[in-house]
Amino acid sequence: MPSLLRISVALVAAALGSQAQTFQRLGTCPTLGCVFPPDQADFLPGQVFDIRLEVHAPVNGSEAFNNGVPDEKFALTIQRVGEHGKARTVKEFLGLKAEPALEKWTFSYFEDLFAQDAKTPTVVNVASKAYRQVALYTPGEYTATLNFFGNQKTIATWTVREPPTNPKKHKAKNVLFFIGDGMTISMQTAARLIAHKSINGKYQSLLQLDQMDNLGHQMTHSIDSFITDSANSATALNTGHKSTVNALNVYVDSSPDPFDDPKVETLAEMFRRVRNGLIGIVTTAFVADATPAAVVAHTRNRDLAAPIVDMFLHGETNYSWPGVKGVDVLFGGGAENFLPTGSFQGKNYYDEFKKAGYGVAFDNKSLQTLDNKKRALGIFSISNMAKWVDRQVLKKNLFGLKNSPTGDGTDAVDQPGLKEMTLKAIDILHARSKADKNQGWYLMSEAASIDKMMHVLDYHRALGELLELDDTVRASIEHLKKLGIYDDTLIVVTADHGHGFDVFGGVDTQYLHAASSDRQKRSAIGVYANSGLSGYTVAPDSSPKNNTVVIGAQGANFPVQWDPRFALAAGVVAFPDHRENYTTAQNGPRLPAVNSADGFVPNPTDAQDGFALSGTIPTNQAQGVHSLTDVAVYANGPGSEAFRGVYSAIDIFFKMADALGLATFSNTTSSHH
Amino acid sequence: MPSLLRISVALVAAALGSQAQTFQRLGTCPTLGCVFPPDQADFLPGQVFDIRLEVHAPVNGSEAFNNGVPDEKFALTIQRVGEHGKARTVKEFLGLKAEPALEKWTFSYFEDLFAQDAKTPTVVNVASKAYRQVALYTPGEYTATLNFFGNQKTIATWTVREPPTNPKKHKAKNVLFFIGDGMTISMQTAARLIAHKSINGKYQSLLQLDQMDNLGHQMTHSIDSFITDSANSATALNTGHKSTVNALNVYVDSSPDPFDDPKVETLAEMFRRVRNGLIGIVTTAFVADATPAAVVAHTRNRDLAAPIVDMFLHGETNYSWPGVKGVDVLFGGGAENFLPTGSFQGKNYYDEFKKAGYGVAFDNKSLQTLDNKKRALGIFSISNMAKWVDRQVLKKNLFGLKNSPTGDGTDAVDQPGLKEMTLKAIDILHARSKADKNQGWYLMSEAASIDKMMHVLDYHRALGELLELDDTVRASIEHLKKLGIYDDTLIVVTADHGHGFDVFGGVDTQYLHAASSDRQKRSAIGVYANSGLSGYTVAPDSSPKNNTVVIGAQGANFPVQWDPRFALAAGVVAFPDHRENYTTAQNGPRLPAVNSADGFVPNPTDAQDGFALSGTIPTNQAQGVHSLTDVAVYANGPGSEAFRGVYSAIDIFFKMADALGLATFSNTTSSHH
Repeated sequence: MPSLLRISVALVAAALGSQAQTFQRLGTCPTLGCVFPPDQADFLPGQVFDIRLEVHAPVNGSEAFNNGVPDEKFALTIQRVGEHGKARTVKEFLGLKAEPALEKWTFSYFEDLFAQDAKTPTVVNVASKAYRQVALYTPGEYTATLNFFGNQKTIATWTVREPPTNPKKHKAKNVLFFIGDGMTISMQTAARLIAHKSINGKYQSLLQLDQMDNLGHQMTHSIDSFITDSANSATALNTGHKSTVNALNVYVDSSPDPFDDPKVETLAEMFRRVRNGLIGIVTTAFVADATPAAVVAHTRNRDLAAPIVDMFLHGETNYSWPGVKGVDVLFGGGAENFLPTGSFQGKNYYDEFKKAGYGVAFDNKSLQTLDNKKRALGIFSISNMAKWVDRQVLKKNLFGLKNSPTGDGTDAVDQPGLKEMTLKAIDILHARSKADKNQGWYLMSEAASIDKMMHVLDYHRALGELLELDDTVRASIEHLKKLGIYDDTLIVVTADHGHGFDVFGGVDTQYLHAASSDRQKRSAIGVYANSGLSGYTVAPDSSPKNNTVVIGAQGANFPVQWDPRFALAAGVVAFPDHRENYTTAQNGPRLPAVNSADGFVPNPTDAQDGFALSGTIPTNQAQGVHSLTDVAVYANGPGSEAFRGVYSAIDIFFKMADALGLATFSNTTSSHH
Repeated sequence: MPSLLRISVALVAAALGSQAQTFQRLGTCPTLGCVFPPDQADFLPGQVFDIRLEVHAPVNGSEAFNNGVPDEKFALTIQRVGEHGKARTVKEFLGLKAEPALEKWTFSYFEDLFAQDAKTPTVVNVASKAYRQVALYTPGEYTATLNFFGNQKTIATWTVREPPTNPKKHKAKNVLFFIGDGMTISMQTAARLIAHKSINGKYQSLLQLDQMDNLGHQMTHSIDSFITDSANSATALNTGHKSTVNALNVYVDSSPDPFDDPKVETLAEMFRRVRNGLIGIVTTAFVADATPAAVVAHTRNRDLAAPIVDMFLHGETNYSWPGVKGVDVLFGGGAENFLPTGSFQGKNYYDEFKKAGYGVAFDNKSLQTLDNKKRALGIFSISNMAKWVDRQVLKKNLFGLKNSPTGDGTDAVDQPGLKEMTLKAIDILHARSKADKNQGWYLMSEAASIDKMMHVLDYHRALGELLELDDTVRASIEHLKKLGIYDDTLIVVTADHGHGFDVFGGVDTQYLHAASSDRQKRSAIGVYANSGLSGYTVAPDSSPKNNTVVIGAQGANFPVQWDPRFALAAGVVAFPDHRENYTTAQNGPRLPAVNSADGFVPNPTDAQDGFALSGTIPTNQAQGVHSLTDVAVYANGPGSEAFRGVYSAIDIFFKMADALGLATFSNTTSSHH
């Protein structure tokens, strides 16, 4: 693609020279002049965003410049490529009423691990300005040029993408967007193996994901590192803009305030602004976790759970960002940020939501009785919700946790699953849309603990969560058909990143248990021909005489048993020191490693009859980490053909926005200017 | 899929009761009466196959029966489902001239690891018959019932698939089938990262695979174990029949003869028989390796390299199997099985091929001068061919190996790459087709050492091989367009299985090298935000002042450097004890582990400055093993839309056969009856 290369030659060499390293001064800013959104940013026509400019003057270190005094007279010009005349100032180009105030601050960072060990930080002084809530309406390429320190320039090429479909003829009324957090293709293969029977190499049934109409792959990397977390990958999916680890719907600046980073409008925000669309959020995590937060929240720090809960109800209160100001459905865990002991400004957020007219549910029973016409909040546990395996198979693990969402110290034993939450969310969104202008809805439903259980190397529970997601997609398709809105609804299922997980053999757990040394225990693993077949689809008491097909108590699409003698030998590529015995942990999710004076070491109470493995990651890491792999995308319904092939995570935003017809070509349709 | 379940209820419980274990009496035969092809086998109409029946009488062990005396009066009946009347005998149903002779033998196996440790094998006496070279021409379901021991039955349901397209209106004239051996989706992501530049999270160029028209996933498992090797996975791709580890285009029986197992006709054999199609085989492995062998060879033991070489020239000499009897192109390594010291019956196979009219080449120079009108043999090294990284970057590693294909003890320094071999093969097949009846060709081109380098944990070389495959696909598309046959040619690219590989971070190799303890070395790894960007796309001497885009000496689609300070932290889930330092091994492919009295331990000369990892597999395993994950399928050209979605490896055979129109509905078009 020589044309693309040509445009950005100046940036390529600059960017790569200083950034192919593990520590960076500031992501996406390889020079001393930073433009956010940076070079190569894509926008939907009319998408609202902030511009942040920074000029850096490192006081010391390899880039020390100008005695640490940043240029305060920097200026940005913008020009649409192909437009006649000179580049105009940002104020003129965007028709802004006033030039924003100059801001100044100082930050520091380590240039590499040697500097960190030596405790020699590099200090950087910054001069900055932020231009808030702007938008570009005309498709095409734009050149934004920051002039600083007299003769230095940073050039950012921005592209406003022409939508493939006329927004007035949009294809879908609703979007049902499933995120299997951390769901890697190899996990789907393993989930199929444990839940679906095969005879002589032929599966007798398949995952719902296997049967979706369209298949694609997406690249998940961050903007400034190749391994993403769930915040910036969700940012890509929700805004069409890649960002930095931990950031939600902002580009990360170097300022100390975690709420002043330049924001980008999300799909939900555009849908609400352009069409008054209804917004639902369902997750099995705490609701302020990165993936659900990314539907509407804006902050460079995903950990700020309490203010994020406030954003679900009030929108952003800083910088008058338009925001959604009240999602229609919010279901998940995370009571700790609703109760006064851990909430924003110490308020009782159950009361705040009730005052705003929300129905509120605390368990599956009350979830089912929520009024479909009212906005709804359902918080079903403190912290993350129970895992499918514990909810359905090892139910004793629900007791003794004192995790009732009411905060009364009882156990949250009647938690709904992803399926129950998602179907109820559809009912509410559908009823509210019908009762209003039939404007449609956007529902994000997250199977959060695929990721959480992979992090703690609890492969069995992770696969249980994946199977629950698959079952939820299957049930949702049926439910949409029953409601008569399947043909109006684009369904997209994807992940936000992977884990380097795979199955490499079968293991005779009896032999492993009986073996005495670590090295002998490894002989229990059968590879290739000795991997055998799936023990999870065979009832413990089955025999050749038993002439019936066994279906587990949890239904046809789940394992018949979770602890066969011949189990899967599975693993991940990134793990702390731990032991492996390949059985389903009986007392709840695994905790593979515990901290010690020498960093994390195997948890003495985990997988006690297993063999020891020394880790592959820094010893300060308690659990496995995300991986690079592309993840799969599945789509059904209007606009779903666009999801075929291989593309960036940001394209999922553009494809969904195109299906909903969210582009706007002038600011007259917008309420924010 | 209740209808499928209903059909096979009897077999499900029986099969799963005894087979979900790491050791089996005989794969696909859970009862004491075995039918091959077994239950659930699929056939193309007219596809030739053998039937093998076995009755087992275990002398001892958990299944001991009838004092170890097998029933010799067993009988098979066949009925087409929906056909009136009683089931007929196999002889009558298939119109065979005579009943085959009864065969008898004995074999033994261990029931599990405890029995193996105790050295208590189970002995099984067998009575058997084989019905050779039969075919089913009418699409539909067939029930084959083996009656044995008086009242026992084994029922196999066979399906002859109705082709979606009328074979007379076939879509493709040629098929170019690429196999990236062991190529996992996560490897493609990693290969993209090291070879293609990105700016602020946006790739400036992509893999050719990323840009193919159609994307699918295939399930790779064996018929009787969930982890496959490259032989039986290639069997699935070439015949539409899954088989057992190590088996090539046969179902594995229990007899001692590795050539008498029941055969199934391959796509190449059908193409030759039905249309006199031209057949080409290209590989970077030794040519008798499993993947190239699977185009035409039939044996339960892939390791029989010398007779496999004979099969490329003469077809099967046992049991008068029709076979191809001389492929048109055969390019790769493996001189050891052509030279009299290691060949079939001690002949010089270069001479044998020459006598049969083949042009013969031993290096890239002579490859390029081969006459395109003649059949061609190119053998370019002893054993597997050189790896791309060594051929293109670390060329010193080509010297001192004494691996000249002529056997003269010199070095094979002028080896062609996959691209050179594939383009020349296309030229020959195209020229020969044009000079004959324009009947078309089938070329299988294998990037074998993606797998071989993953096995030895040499991730860098594996990714080099993957990039060479990608470059070959790109060049082949261009070449087919130049020849004017792109629109006639179905191109399919897939893998035969995965490895549990992924990238989980970046690593500061300078810090790792300098750190003194294993635990401190792990601190060199940066995860998430600290993973950084790809160091492989940055020239060692680049700086922000260097205002040019750097392209590696090997071209735009390869890394600029292979040993950046900030390297990929990558790994696999299945590995022997070894050390990791994340650098490209400078002296040729890695050898991560060596044998000792206590099994395999880290090779003292490998990754000497790395940290130690204890393995995840039995200590008798020298290298990493294959994994379960589904692998990707990419397709362009006529018939390529059929490759979308998720399906079994066997479906790839049926989709290619449909594109070529190879089904035959009566035996009058066939020469073999």
